[in-house]
Amino acid sequence: MRALVKERPGKGLVLKDVPAPRPGPRDVLIRVARVGLCGTDAHIYAWNAWAAGRLKPPVVIGHEFAGVIAEVGSEVTGHAPGDTVTAESHIACGVCVQCRTGNAHICRSVRIIGVDIDGAFADFIVMPAANVWKIDSGISMDVAAIHDPLGNAFHTVMSADVRGRSVLVTGCGPIGLFCIGIAKASGASRIFASEVQPARLELARMMGAHQIINPATADLEQVIRSQTDGLGVDVVLEMSGHPRAIRGGLRVVRDGGEVCLLGLPEDEVPLDVSRDIIFKGVTLKGIIGRRMFETWYAMRSYLKAGLLDPRPVITHRFAIDDFEKALEAIHSGAGKVILSMDGGAS
Amino acid sequence: MRALVKERPGKGLVLKDVPAPRPGPRDVLIRVARVGLCGTDAHIYAWNAWAAGRLKPPVVIGHEFAGVIAEVGSEVTGHAPGDTVTAESHIACGVCVQCRTGNAHICRSVRIIGVDIDGAFADFIVMPAANVWKIDSGISMDVAAIHDPLGNAFHTVMSADVRGRSVLVTGCGPIGLFCIGIAKASGASRIFASEVQPARLELARMMGAHQIINPATADLEQVIRSQTDGLGVDVVLEMSGHPRAIRGGLRVVRDGGEVCLLGLPEDEVPLDVSRDIIFKGVTLKGIIGRRMFETWYAMRSYLKAGLLDPRPVITHRFAIDDFEKALEAIHSGAGKVILSMDGGAS
Amino acid sequence: MRALVKERPGKGLVLKDVPAPRPGPRDVLIRVARVGLCGTDAHIYAWNAWAAGRLKPPVVIGHEFAGVIAEVGSEVTGHAPGDTVTAESHIACGVCVQCRTGNAHICRSVRIIGVDIDGAFADFIVMPAANVWKIDSGISMDVAAIHDPLGNAFHTVMSADVRGRSVLVTGCGPIGLFCIGIAKASGASRIFASEVQPARLELARMMGAHQIINPATADLEQVIRSQTDGLGVDVVLEMSGHPRAIRGGLRVVRDGGEVCLLGLPEDEVPLDVSRDIIFKGVTLKGIIGRRMFETWYAMRSYLKAGLLDPRPVITHRFAIDDFEKALEAIHSGAGKVILSMDGGAS
Amino acid sequence: MRALVKERPGKGLVLKDVPAPRPGPRDVLIRVARVGLCGTDAHIYAWNAWAAGRLKPPVVIGHEFAGVIAEVGSEVTGHAPGDTVTAESHIACGVCVQCRTGNAHICRSVRIIGVDIDGAFADFIVMPAANVWKIDSGISMDVAAIHDPLGNAFHTVMSADVRGRSVLVTGCGPIGLFCIGIAKASGASRIFASEVQPARLELARMMGAHQIINPATADLEQVIRSQTDGLGVDVVLEMSGHPRAIRGGLRVVRDGGEVCLLGLPEDEVPLDVSRDIIFKGVTLKGIIGRRMFETWYAMRSYLKAGLLDPRPVITHRFAIDDFEKALEAIHSGAGKVILSMDGGAS
Repeated sequence: MRALVKERPGKGLVLKDVPAPRPGPRDVLIRVARVGLCGTDAHIYAWNAWAAGRLKPPVVIGHEFAGVIAEVGSEVTGHAPGDTVTAESHIACGVCVQCRTGNAHICRSVRIIGVDIDGAFADFIVMPAANVWKIDSGISMDVAAIHDPLGNAFHTVMSADVRGRSVLVTGCGPIGLFCIGIAKASGASRIFASEVQPARLELARMMGAHQIINPATADLEQVIRSQTDGLGVDVVLEMSGHPRAIRGGLRVVRDGGEVCLLGLPEDEVPLDVSRDIIFKGVTLKGIIGRRMFETWYAMRSYLKAGLLDPRPVITHRFAIDDFEKALEAIHSGAGKVILSMDGGAS
Repeated sequence: MRALVKERPGKGLVLKDVPAPRPGPRDVLIRVARVGLCGTDAHIYAWNAWAAGRLKPPVVIGHEFAGVIAEVGSEVTGHAPGDTVTAESHIACGVCVQCRTGNAHICRSVRIIGVDIDGAFADFIVMPAANVWKIDSGISMDVAAIHDPLGNAFHTVMSADVRGRSVLVTGCGPIGLFCIGIAKASGASRIFASEVQPARLELARMMGAHQIINPATADLEQVIRSQTDGLGVDVVLEMSGHPRAIRGGLRVVRDGGEVCLLGLPEDEVPLDVSRDIIFKGVTLKGIIGRRMFETWYAMRSYLKAGLLDPRPVITHRFAIDDFEKALEAIHSGAGKVILSMDGGAS
Repeated sequence: MRALVKERPGKGLVLKDVPAPRPGPRDVLIRVARVGLCGTDAHIYAWNAWAAGRLKPPVVIGHEFAGVIAEVGSEVTGHAPGDTVTAESHIACGVCVQCRTGNAHICRSVRIIGVDIDGAFADFIVMPAANVWKIDSGISMDVAAIHDPLGNAFHTVMSADVRGRSVLVTGCGPIGLFCIGIAKASGASRIFASEVQPARLELARMMGAHQIINPATADLEQVIRSQTDGLGVDVVLEMSGHPRAIRGGLRVVRDGGEVCLLGLPEDEVPLDVSRDIIFKGVTLKGIIGRRMFETWYAMRSYLKAGLLDPRPVITHRFAIDDFEKALEAIHSGAGKVILSMDGGAS
Repeated sequence: MRALVKERPGKGLVLKDVPAPRPGPRDVLIRVARVGLCGTDAHIYAWNAWAAGRLKPPVVIGHEFAGVIAEVGSEVTGHAPGDTVTAESHIACGVCVQCRTGNAHICRSVRIIGVDIDGAFADFIVMPAANVWKIDSGISMDVAAIHDPLGNAFHTVMSADVRGRSVLVTGCGPIGLFCIGIAKASGASRIFASEVQPARLELARMMGAHQIINPATADLEQVIRSQTDGLGVDVVLEMSGHPRAIRGGLRVVRDGGEVCLLGLPEDEVPLDVSRDIIFKGVTLKGIIGRRMFETWYAMRSYLKAGLLDPRPVITHRFAIDDFEKALEAIHSGAGKVILSMDGGAS
């Protein structure tokens, strides 16, 4: 089968033929139709410090995907060939204290597909049946393919209370854009979106932001204070990982507000802990992955009810052969980039 | 009356005679019996940057106190001359959004006695009746005088869930020491206390710490990992404000754990947000003041039930005339230092 | 001034001239423009057991109102003549344990206007300044007049987590109808509304219910199970007080679900505690009044953001002279009934 | 092997020889050392309506036990022969929405050992490895054998906030007695225990109750109001299932308080919903089983830290042959009754 492989340390990826995997008794074999390209994939291509420290090539990359079940293992129930599915990309150990207390998203022995083990940018992938998530009819294959980042966004928004609240989303990559739509559907009363890429700001507006702010040209704090009676925003959802956004978010969150951090800064970030956290009585929450499977049920429910339409976020589609063009696109301010394994687009 | 006054900008304090204040119709006049000395008072004495930026001399200092009601204003009900009382030192505005939504401890227009307005290191103080807190019989005047810092500790511990949990208290000044006792009484299963002053570590043990750690001589992370199956502690209560303690606490809190921050660092603190907050799914909470009046009811309840005895934390007592000796004591690793206005000690 | 007065025990109300009240130093005098008629007013008219046990005639009735400030007491700040306002109808004591711990809505010494003291169905009312709530420009006087019941609905919906959840509202009087709109705006994925009055069911649909159910003609449980994969609904908001609705709600709430009870049954209700509460791990919450003032801020925020339009619920308007016609209307399946004191309607 | 078997519908149990079970690849075979007798077992013996409706004889009964692993299935890791273990008696399906969202204790397809499938009153039992719970050295076999009911108690107490709170435990059977000890260790400031059996009231005192009340001879409400400034208790833990206790608990819980219901009433219970739930703003929680595995980790932590000693609750020990004497004992006000399979007692 075709697969996009990190063959060895260093820059680059190779699309090549590799043997198709075979499912064990509790696994599901999925024919991949569509995959989503993530910043993580770009880091792996570029072989940054994180990638060099974690990956053990060769490995098939990719963790956002959807497809159709081709075969189920002998002990699998609840899944059948022909089902359209995606999957939770974090394969949790199931036995650590985190897994056994409802926190599998921070499993200490997690293996992530496309990072720690072979992933989804291939014609077939094998997943543990417990990780496979059935897609409702009526949901397109493209949307199915981006449940992983959409789930990150649901996890983030659901970690805060946005009802009737003002919300600042810092960083309008795909996950930030999803957050805007989810917050809007959940009763946020005023949504500010900050981002340096103009195209993404337009997407932010399309997803429901009431006010878009380009911190390269406007004073974030001044804009927000002027529109919140000087109080600041109730909730900050930090999706960029930029030190400036983290610091700015802490600066403009109101006294007693909440800050959810998902974007990963590369280096340490100096914070004014006294002024911005303690004196204000602020709560910060680190957000990683998706809650298994509360996040997934919430996502299903919003999508099924039509509370959220994530499709405007999908701005680019490529065939798998054009993966390098796709990688370029995510560096130029694209929304979500989809690669098609099956030639389809929907 | 006698009062300890910051007369003008610069180092020092003066014990001098000033006119006694008079209560308004909704105020209570209290004859002060005992006062507690706080690090804040030392900062005011030394006139550090914070003090220079905030105080407008002349001002009578002091915010921890207890005494006996001498007179009540014409509209005051529920308080009477002869009652032993202390008071919430934060005079909240009562009308801001924080005050009106149960968050008066982060009132945007708070005035703190002994800082923004005349305080308690005097023979008499006038307090709004709403701030006055009646002391149950059976509670000593000394313990009454330290309800303010004890309340900081209650606010901190009650903000976390310590039941059956391992807890690290970083910084064993009086508030940290109180936290140890409160956590112990609240079902914490294992309490670690870190502090560089050996005398305070002994007090930590006396208050119920299972394991004391001097980070000057021991490796905090190594000690904690070795006693928590490598997982780290469930809860960190950071009471020191030292960058090293904040960073160390974030390092050793377990995945999914909670970090409550009360100690105020003077400068920005560089944090490894990705590794220590996001990847671990950690929650941080800034803690300031006392919840009005949930914290006070909790404090009353613990004290009345004998769940906590804060008296071992009181290590020094001085007459008000010896205030400079008292200030020296808090720089030499003392526990709580009490000044007597009435000559008594209990 | 004109006032609608319960003059003596027994059925009836009298519209008569009475002396206008005068504000004290911390009070606000309001010229009433519009009032809302509540089931409570009908109970007082009819002099049911509850009314007979609680009211001490003579008393001016009415607790839902809006108007314009005519005069403010000498100590009042933050309010001024000419402001359009409504008010929290529960005058809490401010000093009991509930009031001092953020639970003034269950103050043990509450006095309710129009019940315990003179109310709003009059040309003027005096309210404590702390209870007065300024209405944003852009909000109509009619909507201003129904903030009290709208607040009941906000209190109810905000007590549950409806995001992505299925919700059953039992009882589609005005408060139930408001709940539907608020739940819809807060991310509820599927809203069921049950009610025996067909006109109210149509209003329910207009407010956003996905499925309306008349339990007089349909099997509530069967309908709900058929549309929830047999699981039942996530959240029940019980607004009717009918034993059958309470029991039915408990029957169809899913395992682990939430039931918020606001409707007041007149008699004891037999519940299958084992089957419907314990085995299912269900949580029940009694809801009364409005949280002071979290509920009010949420209400302001939703209204200002246009997340909710409560106006379709207002189905009848009368001049104050026609109060008996208005009382008839609320017995015939009306939505909210407004009485005009000033001749206006908007 | 020996096993206590419900052979056919109707009263009685038979101790007889049956074939020992064999573990599957993900199972653990445990040699049972000690078992705990539960009211459920007595219901099965007596063949009450619940038992007749649920059990499908023949079935080996018993769900509270501890023993030593004899053999592990081929795919089992983390457990080894020789380990002392007990087990979660609820075998959850793992795939329903409850199981996948951290609520396996209300799994819709749960199978309970000793009820739905063969249980623990036998020389050997096979359990899924995921249900097996390793016992720390230092915990006696007797205490190991009662982790199931002790876990019910932990689930109950942990569902409320008892810190600095007054708590009423209604019903001092073993689970109620455990609740007293756990609440005491968790910072409850005043614990009331009500029970009609004098021997159990003495055990209640031994476990830490500050005040014991026999409702057959004292007025529960009067006693509690007199000791709570007329306010009532903060938290009620209802463990008896008696209608009178449920109603009494609701009567004496304070405004805004919490009521946790675990005891299973046989019939419907009439409740004054308006007066006791809605007007007071009370929260009720149905409690069933144990949270998997948060409850178990909490239990381990309390036991290991010595925060709780459940041993005084164990009042009777019998050899398995004397099971009928043991059943008599639980009808005569005993604490926990242990049956020994191995002849040991500790």
